[in-house]
Amino acid sequence: MTVTTPLGFRAAGVAAGLKASGAHDVAVVVNDGPGATVAGVFTANRVKAAPVLWSQQVVHGGVVRAVVLNSGGANACTGPAGFQDTHATAEHVAAVLTAAEPGREIGAGEVAVCSTGLIGERLPMPALLAGVDRAVRELSGSGGASAAQAIMTTDTRPKTTVVSGAGWTVGGMAKGAGMLAPAMATMLCVLTTDAVAAPEVLDAALREACRVTFDRIDSDGCMSTNDTVLLLASGASGVTPGEAELTAAVTAAAHDLAQQLIADAEGATKQIAIEVTGAAGEDDAVEVGRAVARNNLVKTALFGNDPNWGRILAAVGTTAAAFEPDAVDVAVNGIWVCRSGAAAEDRSKVDLTGRDVTISVDLHAGSAAATVWTNDLSHAYVHENSAYST
Amino acid sequence: MTVTTPLGFRAAGVAAGLKASGAHDVAVVVNDGPGATVAGVFTANRVKAAPVLWSQQVVHGGVVRAVVLNSGGANACTGPAGFQDTHATAEHVAAVLTAAEPGREIGAGEVAVCSTGLIGERLPMPALLAGVDRAVRELSGSGGASAAQAIMTTDTRPKTTVVSGAGWTVGGMAKGAGMLAPAMATMLCVLTTDAVAAPEVLDAALREACRVTFDRIDSDGCMSTNDTVLLLASGASGVTPGEAELTAAVTAAAHDLAQQLIADAEGATKQIAIEVTGAAGEDDAVEVGRAVARNNLVKTALFGNDPNWGRILAAVGTTAAAFEPDAVDVAVNGIWVCRSGAAAEDRSKVDLTGRDVTISVDLHAGSAAATVWTNDLSHAYVHENSAYST
Repeated sequence: MTVTTPLGFRAAGVAAGLKASGAHDVAVVVNDGPGATVAGVFTANRVKAAPVLWSQQVVHGGVVRAVVLNSGGANACTGPAGFQDTHATAEHVAAVLTAAEPGREIGAGEVAVCSTGLIGERLPMPALLAGVDRAVRELSGSGGASAAQAIMTTDTRPKTTVVSGAGWTVGGMAKGAGMLAPAMATMLCVLTTDAVAAPEVLDAALREACRVTFDRIDSDGCMSTNDTVLLLASGASGVTPGEAELTAAVTAAAHDLAQQLIADAEGATKQIAIEVTGAAGEDDAVEVGRAVARNNLVKTALFGNDPNWGRILAAVGTTAAAFEPDAVDVAVNGIWVCRSGAAAEDRSKVDLTGRDVTISVDLHAGSAAATVWTNDLSHAYVHENSAYST
Repeated sequence: MTVTTPLGFRAAGVAAGLKASGAHDVAVVVNDGPGATVAGVFTANRVKAAPVLWSQQVVHGGVVRAVVLNSGGANACTGPAGFQDTHATAEHVAAVLTAAEPGREIGAGEVAVCSTGLIGERLPMPALLAGVDRAVRELSGSGGASAAQAIMTTDTRPKTTVVSGAGWTVGGMAKGAGMLAPAMATMLCVLTTDAVAAPEVLDAALREACRVTFDRIDSDGCMSTNDTVLLLASGASGVTPGEAELTAAVTAAAHDLAQQLIADAEGATKQIAIEVTGAAGEDDAVEVGRAVARNNLVKTALFGNDPNWGRILAAVGTTAAAFEPDAVDVAVNGIWVCRSGAAAEDRSKVDLTGRDVTISVDLHAGSAAATVWTNDLSHAYVHENSAYST
């Protein structure tokens, strides 16, 4: 049920014909309140898609009553005309929702827009708007599952989550199988909660949650133009959780979705956790984790079940983190194949036959730690990204 | 003839048994003078192989009379014992050369060492030293070709070059097929010249040459532990070229070798030049070029003959270079598929059937320019780097 599990939300997903496959491609999520607070985190890419530019403004207003999402087209690099398309979509959603429920007035400035798909092409607006009409007619308190399906691109399965608080709930859905990279997880994600929370409380909770989850997955080092994570609160539970409690629940939901994203990354055969310890600071630990996560030679070695710790150490060496090269220890799946920067335990002891891989890097430079998650680089990644435009 | 084309140099390459294949794996290059000046540029990776640490010291001394190079083992991440192996190799080369030519004294501190191959394993020293003995016996003024063969790893062909000055010559050889990345071209390269030149003149010429050639090729974004570029001058021509003249010749030689490296990069099916113009400064142009060169989604798209300019623009957007997203133009093989950040000419006009690809990015933010060279990301890259340890 996902985004519709918390009280006060309805959703629907429909096939509007944006995808050649005929699969679901337009989703609408509506917050029926009583509250309509919102927070958002967006891509750090300077080339931002039209829906990102639009939704940043909408979220800045602090009130979002509906989100419209489409796959089948990113509406990025589409110029002023593309921005007009996003604006028109929000206007249309607002008008249709207002017409469907007389007495309830929704403005375009309360409608966030998310798009994903091929960059550089205009959206087929008549099909999209017709899809919005159908989605609004099909809105229901059990529509979260179809909405999660409608935002998939190369995802092989929908990603949803539910985390329960004391009398309140966080639900969520996400998509994203390639272009998963730092400084935002390069994906679309809508989180909902029936907790009562002011926009600034939601914002703090969402930023902290993203910082340690979506910002620490790095599938292929490529940062998208469309990344959007929204957190909508309806307040329908009547419960106002403490800020720490809310942050913990939102973080748990984001962590669950982030792990699903990495597990379903394009062509992945391994799900890799890079645990960096002994760092002088958390930033150092994250920098080292990312450098390893982005190293194509490490990623191809793991695809080939090769515990090639030399490539790991070479990746660590490209960072500005505090460490001495002859002090670093590296383990692969618990076998410390490198101690003090040189060979230690026999690499043949490393078992890489499973899907989960843990790389441990101890910098011996302090007591800070961080984990970055990634996946391997496989033939299937090359195939998916060379054979199809995305 | 390569490194032995300039007067005053002898070389040899032999099979010492370091490579399981039985191919050539040990090379010796000797500078017979009368001069023995040297300059060197080394990897920026903080995890430096033992031969890099050694050769940095040797080059600092300003005199190099011999270089010993081996493939079949990088001697990186091998700790103090690995450094002792490098030291012992230099001592051995010095002793054997001194014994072979009574009256000529060569010290270990005048012998540079270069290694390439698997990281983290000790070298088989008895085989290596026996190989040195044989190589020294086979030294000749026509040995450059066999030396170039002996430094190959996953290279499919040796890389050599010759550039002629007015009465003097620059020769060179290089290896490097993966781990080609910025801040040094991640390879071994020996350049020789019979020009007369002081160490500081050589150093200036070599740094400028590397800056615009080896530092601007980026095969897979992975920085090696062993990168070394050496420039040896014998002075045997008796000609002292002007500094600009020398720099131009060394740059031409380095450019030729750098292009050969990119052309023979692991699994490459495309040779890609990323020409960035309209930049506010040269650093901006290089940063943008590198961001595109390192983007796996751009690289896989080109492998698939897809002129996916949206991925190019998304890569540009990750940089801190000065530009406005809605002002950027992008061409692929001369077709301006993107103008002002949006679709322009029909992408179907782009012909990507050939091996050479030119991506042009006009930032419209100034008048500086730079070109970065890379290659595509193919199934063969994944295969080479997952099926074999390197």
